[in-house]
Amino acid sequence: MTSPNAPTTTESAPTVVVVSGNPRPGSRTLGAAEAAAQRIAAHLGIDDVATIDLATFAAEILAPEHPAADAAKERLAGATVAVIATPVYKAAYTGLLKSFLDLYGNDGLAGVVAVPLVVSGNPGHALAGEVHLRPVLVELGAVVPARSLTVTEGQLADLDGVIEAWLDRGGEALRRAVVPALVAAGVGEVVR
Amino acid sequence: MTSPNAPTTTESAPTVVVVSGNPRPGSRTLGAAEAAAQRIAAHLGIDDVATIDLATFAAEILAPEHPAADAAKERLAGATVAVIATPVYKAAYTGLLKSFLDLYGNDGLAGVVAVPLVVSGNPGHALAGEVHLRPVLVELGAVVPARSLTVTEGQLADLDGVIEAWLDRGGEALRRAVVPALVAAGVGEVVR
Repeated sequence: MTSPNAPTTTESAPTVVVVSGNPRPGSRTLGAAEAAAQRIAAHLGIDDVATIDLATFAAEILAPEHPAADAAKERLAGATVAVIATPVYKAAYTGLLKSFLDLYGNDGLAGVVAVPLVVSGNPGHALAGEVHLRPVLVELGAVVPARSLTVTEGQLADLDGVIEAWLDRGGEALRRAVVPALVAAGVGEVVR
Repeated sequence: MTSPNAPTTTESAPTVVVVSGNPRPGSRTLGAAEAAAQRIAAHLGIDDVATIDLATFAAEILAPEHPAADAAKERLAGATVAVIATPVYKAAYTGLLKSFLDLYGNDGLAGVVAVPLVVSGNPGHALAGEVHLRPVLVELGAVVPARSLTVTEGQLADLDGVIEAWLDRGGEALRRAVVPALVAAGVGEVVR
């Protein structure tokens, strides 16, 4: 007999979902976000990591019909943790990422714990995640407990070090934010 | 014989160009921006006002080929004054507008005097033009001499009043920023 708290469908299993808003498929932004997601998942004890690369269906997002975007939208909204990644374009997130997020209605990411991740060619844009991306995610109802993870292009060679340094500072806040979702899914324990 | 300063082609005639980033064609955002552009053109002594409604070619903007967007891009970059208009979506500009602006290279709007115009359903988002749209326009090299023009939905019934109040405060800064372009086109006089 299963525990009443055990997940009964795969939909309720905790998931880390990566969204990359870089217009190039298989970009370094996507790679950095997947590396961060794997490390975050390990930190939180989550096994399931999935990827949404907006570049692969970019052309439909601003069209009247967008079935791949609709499926991605639903998947992201059901994530326990979402790593929302973008390169810096014109000092902010890409229009591609914002066009995707604009498909949501009010509070479309309610219940999702989000990590903004920004890959910047220019260290002067290190605050783009906090100043531009965070407010959009918060407006959508996501919880953003840790600071944005910023990776400059020069740091891509030491991605693991950057992710670990970020996790040292934000990992505990992230864990505390996620515990309720893990407990609800029957796979977590009450936060100590 | 024409003056050496006189415009020799229609391309060099001063122009106010409106861009609307509302995904609905013929939106109230577009209407508000056109009303503002007409008033700004009268204030500056510019005759030519043109409109770009991104909604009419939204579906191509994130596609690999986007001929209508390319033509619009060139037209906007050649504007003397650009009124860049957006409704507030997820606390910021629309993804549609940002996707269009992302088509520019570095300093793609250099030499253009820009007016951010934001139509907001929620007065709490009155700063979206200053906080979100202005930095993108500045990054593109545009000059943004006046404050953003914010119109709440409740103010759409008194649009003329809102535009006049905005022009009372920002009109002189706008005029001074535009004079060099008018002089270069042979239709202005040195600022007093």
